[in-house]
Amino acid sequence: MTICALATTPGGALGIIRVSGPQSIEVLSRVFTKDVSSAQPNTIHYGHIKDGTEIIDEVMVSVFRAPHSYTGEDSVEISCHGSRYILNKVLSLLIANGCRQANPGEFTQRAFLNGKMDLSQAEAVADLIASSNKATHQMAMSQLRGGISTELSRLREQLLKLTSLLELELDFSDHEDLEFADRSELLELTKTIDNHITRLAHSFETGQALKQGIPVAIVGKTNVGKSTLLNALLKDDRAIVSDIHGTTRDTIEETMDINGIQFRFIDTAGLRKTNDEVEQIGIDRTIQKIKQARIVIWLLDQRPTWSEMDEMHELSKGKKCIYVHNKADLIDINKFNPYILPLSMISAKTGNGVSHLKQRIFEEAERAGLTTNANEIIVTNARHYDALTRAHSHLQRVLNGLQQQLSGDLLSEDLRLTLDTLAEITGGQITPQETLNNIFKHFCVGK
Amino acid sequence: MTICALATTPGGALGIIRVSGPQSIEVLSRVFTKDVSSAQPNTIHYGHIKDGTEIIDEVMVSVFRAPHSYTGEDSVEISCHGSRYILNKVLSLLIANGCRQANPGEFTQRAFLNGKMDLSQAEAVADLIASSNKATHQMAMSQLRGGISTELSRLREQLLKLTSLLELELDFSDHEDLEFADRSELLELTKTIDNHITRLAHSFETGQALKQGIPVAIVGKTNVGKSTLLNALLKDDRAIVSDIHGTTRDTIEETMDINGIQFRFIDTAGLRKTNDEVEQIGIDRTIQKIKQARIVIWLLDQRPTWSEMDEMHELSKGKKCIYVHNKADLIDINKFNPYILPLSMISAKTGNGVSHLKQRIFEEAERAGLTTNANEIIVTNARHYDALTRAHSHLQRVLNGLQQQLSGDLLSEDLRLTLDTLAEITGGQITPQETLNNIFKHFCVGK
Repeated sequence: MTICALATTPGGALGIIRVSGPQSIEVLSRVFTKDVSSAQPNTIHYGHIKDGTEIIDEVMVSVFRAPHSYTGEDSVEISCHGSRYILNKVLSLLIANGCRQANPGEFTQRAFLNGKMDLSQAEAVADLIASSNKATHQMAMSQLRGGISTELSRLREQLLKLTSLLELELDFSDHEDLEFADRSELLELTKTIDNHITRLAHSFETGQALKQGIPVAIVGKTNVGKSTLLNALLKDDRAIVSDIHGTTRDTIEETMDINGIQFRFIDTAGLRKTNDEVEQIGIDRTIQKIKQARIVIWLLDQRPTWSEMDEMHELSKGKKCIYVHNKADLIDINKFNPYILPLSMISAKTGNGVSHLKQRIFEEAERAGLTTNANEIIVTNARHYDALTRAHSHLQRVLNGLQQQLSGDLLSEDLRLTLDTLAEITGGQITPQETLNNIFKHFCVGK
Repeated sequence: MTICALATTPGGALGIIRVSGPQSIEVLSRVFTKDVSSAQPNTIHYGHIKDGTEIIDEVMVSVFRAPHSYTGEDSVEISCHGSRYILNKVLSLLIANGCRQANPGEFTQRAFLNGKMDLSQAEAVADLIASSNKATHQMAMSQLRGGISTELSRLREQLLKLTSLLELELDFSDHEDLEFADRSELLELTKTIDNHITRLAHSFETGQALKQGIPVAIVGKTNVGKSTLLNALLKDDRAIVSDIHGTTRDTIEETMDINGIQFRFIDTAGLRKTNDEVEQIGIDRTIQKIKQARIVIWLLDQRPTWSEMDEMHELSKGKKCIYVHNKADLIDINKFNPYILPLSMISAKTGNGVSHLKQRIFEEAERAGLTTNANEIIVTNARHYDALTRAHSHLQRVLNGLQQQLSGDLLSEDLRLTLDTLAEITGGQITPQETLNNIFKHFCVGK
């Protein structure tokens, strides 16, 4: 079936309508004034889209031929004027002449089914379109270029080696003296593979943080200036924030970009000792937010006592902490007694020190391993994470079996499951239609 | 100078970046992995946009060569993934490598300056992009295809004929007996031309009504159901309404499409005799709205008295009127005494009769000459209207001069002004930069 869809958002100067499928050129010929039936692939043709005698638009048509197209099928792209009326009219015309409106992601799904890309690459297309900063762009581009696929094929190679070693062991199992002689090598290899899988699975946490913004809690006593700091941090960036695709709007969290990495700032209720039950609920919530954060900014306006320092330390254990003295505009620096903590000085009110603080926040993210470089493979997709986790548990059973001296034929099933589970990620095995539907329904139409 | 701009709205599957100017291909070569320096015109090339070693996107590049491009210059179009981040990044890269961000309409302005289209056609491009229904689309398409240009070149021909006839007259003016012998022919020709100009100028009113929606006032006493009718009319259409580009949001007017024509419905305050000053202001406002309307729907729920009928007639003189009896659900049709007026029966509440009323509204618009067909030239542009009006007054002076038996050399200046003024519309004369700026600043960037 030949499908069509608008591939751009209407309202610009241009709008692109995509058509893909065996009848692409035939359907086009019914509405286009120029004959492109014998057009060379990858060529552009000027003409009119017509509904009977009525001219709908002057357009440029790009012609692609199977298998050298995005989908791997014959396709055309019609570049129209960006009027919603015109685009709707051209789409209706194509549908009236034999096309079907494409489902979300159907072009990319066809590219996958026609072997133009594997499943993880197909998923990367949606991530690439949604990418809103350097980090998410880099992760999506790496995945699109086969980053995860390459890692997985390395794992697959090692798993196949493990399989053949086990088979070799079985072949020799009649010779009692040889039995289980080289299990240490098998164990070593299995552990190496499992470490690799675990490392990939763990990178999902980083991937999530980078996708959703690294959570940074701003914590401190009441009236130390937490909201003022949040505003000062966001000041230059607010316009960009509102632009970012998918920014959560139903919380008071605010996201911003520092050096191409997205951070998610979480304002919290002021901390103080209280016997008031209601206030205690707010404080419990703050403690909860500290737990969700990767970086904690402790905002202070006077030197903490030893017990307060102990408490801060206790509350933010395992987090990267930044201690900040606010209201620097109010102090006489010559009379200021240094803290015992390594301290940043700022004035959220005047903005002094804020850009330096941003740099520190970025560095803490780097120290937490939450920044990315182009060569590093980071799993960003929950489906991949799920498959890696299951592959890990299958491989754990293999590992246990090896240690318990089980015979190779008892291990081979779990080994096969490990291979199959990993293959789900790239769609190397036959992928059930339901899984495909779940993957592609989150795409935009026209891709 | 080579310019670049985003030609689509970001957020779709694809985004198109346009580059035009003598260095287009050279600039591209600095950021594109494939060499297209010797690429054939109108061909498409797959490759990567790179910032140093970092891959920004996998793209398709379309190559156009002067003069066979939209602008008449060498140009390329880069089809990227529709991520705002990617599109901004690619634009920045192009700018860093020698392009300048294009001004609004600059591509089309170049097309005009390079003789690819005349000025009225260039303006039609913006109208086409903004077109939101059949009527505005048809008018813009007609203008883009040279509809107005053709009319104007006919007028120009006739004006040149008039000029040469006047010169002929001058040549013979030594022969006293021949002087002014054929002024009747001159007069006739001048009147024909002037009628043509006037007809075009008058079509502007239709053009405006079609562009902004034909104003329809819904008028009647309080509680006859005017708002209910407005809601019933808009019911099926509301979703489309909110989609229409440029819908005025700061008034209570609502627009909707009937058979491809946009109507603008104006709800009014109830009319009734009053001594209350405040209420009188509301009524005065209603009378004002009736004056602005082209079609008036008189909504009734009981038979009007003779004096009421006179009053309605008086208030809506010169308008197309539709008399509607509402609340048809409440009457026993067997006992209903017909009005003297030709009447539509509806129930705004149940929706009965509303679609029939829509058809009547459309027919009244047709009778008022407010619908359009593809062959009719309608002036939609205020600049054109202004030039036509001025051309008309220059020609009026020629006409007066002819009637006052002024000598041909005294008329030739006004005749030349008429020609020049009409030439402003297509930009046949040298167009001042300021005028060009005014025209193109209303375009979107990327067109």
